[in-house]
Amino acid sequence: MAGGARDDRSVADKLFAIADAFQGGDELTLSEVAARAGLPLSTAHRLLAEWVEWGGLARGDDGRYRVGLKLWRLGVRQPTARRLRAIARPYLEDLLDATREHVHLAVRDGLGAIYLERLSGADAVPVISDVGSRLPLHATGVGLVLLAYSTPDVFDEVLAAGPRKYLPNTLTTEPELRARLAGIRATGLSTSVEALTRGAFSVAAPVRDATGAVVAAVSIIAHVERLAEPQFALGVRMAARGISAALGWRP
Amino acid sequence: MAGGARDDRSVADKLFAIADAFQGGDELTLSEVAARAGLPLSTAHRLLAEWVEWGGLARGDDGRYRVGLKLWRLGVRQPTARRLRAIARPYLEDLLDATREHVHLAVRDGLGAIYLERLSGADAVPVISDVGSRLPLHATGVGLVLLAYSTPDVFDEVLAAGPRKYLPNTLTTEPELRARLAGIRATGLSTSVEALTRGAFSVAAPVRDATGAVVAAVSIIAHVERLAEPQFALGVRMAARGISAALGWRP
Repeated sequence: MAGGARDDRSVADKLFAIADAFQGGDELTLSEVAARAGLPLSTAHRLLAEWVEWGGLARGDDGRYRVGLKLWRLGVRQPTARRLRAIARPYLEDLLDATREHVHLAVRDGLGAIYLERLSGADAVPVISDVGSRLPLHATGVGLVLLAYSTPDVFDEVLAAGPRKYLPNTLTTEPELRARLAGIRATGLSTSVEALTRGAFSVAAPVRDATGAVVAAVSIIAHVERLAEPQFALGVRMAARGISAALGWRP
Repeated sequence: MAGGARDDRSVADKLFAIADAFQGGDELTLSEVAARAGLPLSTAHRLLAEWVEWGGLARGDDGRYRVGLKLWRLGVRQPTARRLRAIARPYLEDLLDATREHVHLAVRDGLGAIYLERLSGADAVPVISDVGSRLPLHATGVGLVLLAYSTPDVFDEVLAAGPRKYLPNTLTTEPELRARLAGIRATGLSTSVEALTRGAFSVAAPVRDATGAVVAAVSIIAHVERLAEPQFALGVRMAARGISAALGWRP
């Protein structure tokens, strides 16, 4: 939006667009925030001041803006993340001990998998996922598991959105995705090789709650050279079962 | 504010008041949110809908509102909490192993101590602090440590605010607070008995960054019967030193 152009978005929309800018970086200048939020500099400046006064954003000595402790304090009250992280932690730590690669816990949010937790070994393969990341369902191990146990309308939405082919192995067509999801439901496990990250494979499994519903997924992302090692599938299954049992699931 | 009364607060103020309501509880009805935010029901309803549409708040099947995953994702990007929690975690776990009571990591925010982390033994003493809590500086172990190393104007503000006497042992007068803060600076340790919680004592120590500035505090809250056991002071000192060293501090 050009500077000075009339902006018919509501104040709430504009305030939230300011906050959304911080999903793209930890420390942003005024012009970076304005550009990401699609707002004139003067509007962005005024709304940033409102956020800072409340404490949801903070301005450092360097003039850059970042998320403030008020938003962190609100975030920790999110019931799903709080409960699942607390319950899953010891199982994820065991899985990390057994593999020394990346261990993930994720939940579905629309067409994305949100990473609630990531524990990583010192020499784990470089990946783009981090705690708080939101990655597409069709291109991640946890995402495919969450999709496999979602209602059909979610699958239809994934197809309608036009799944992006990140690497030659990313599944994007309806037949190959249907076949993979059926395989996941049959085995309770998803294995992908270089679907989103070169040099990495993933193994993922579903986490169920007391009602039997799949509420999360656990995965390992490891160096592709280790694909034949047996502890990944076994470890991911055991961690997912342990967390499910802790949530009250009885097979 | 009475329903229908004119409300001259800005839209931003009202939106933020809605969010603040969730510091007081995890799952709130519309009328609870309206009451806590001081807004008419109709205004609260409209602004809650804006929050829900964005994803910062969510509405459950039970009609109650709670913090949404969007706010959780923004919160995890808070640089101070993220960095300190990641660095401190192994030292806090060691301290938990050595004591099996409550282990805290806190930073100062105005006249409050914000609890960035809490790890607790299974039989730890009941306390009101939790991850995300904000408790007064003068009445908590971590708070007194943070106050001891703050600039004099923070101490003046604490006095001006009229420190509340929670229990007979809570320090509230200028002479007793000055003496305690001097003692903390002399020994690098703060020990309080039943200052905020009956049946509990706390031992707290400062965490320094590479510049030598005190940026956080570590504490143990334990059953008062265990006051004479030597591992609390030793353990808290070691954890605080370990975290400081990991932050780049060299004595």
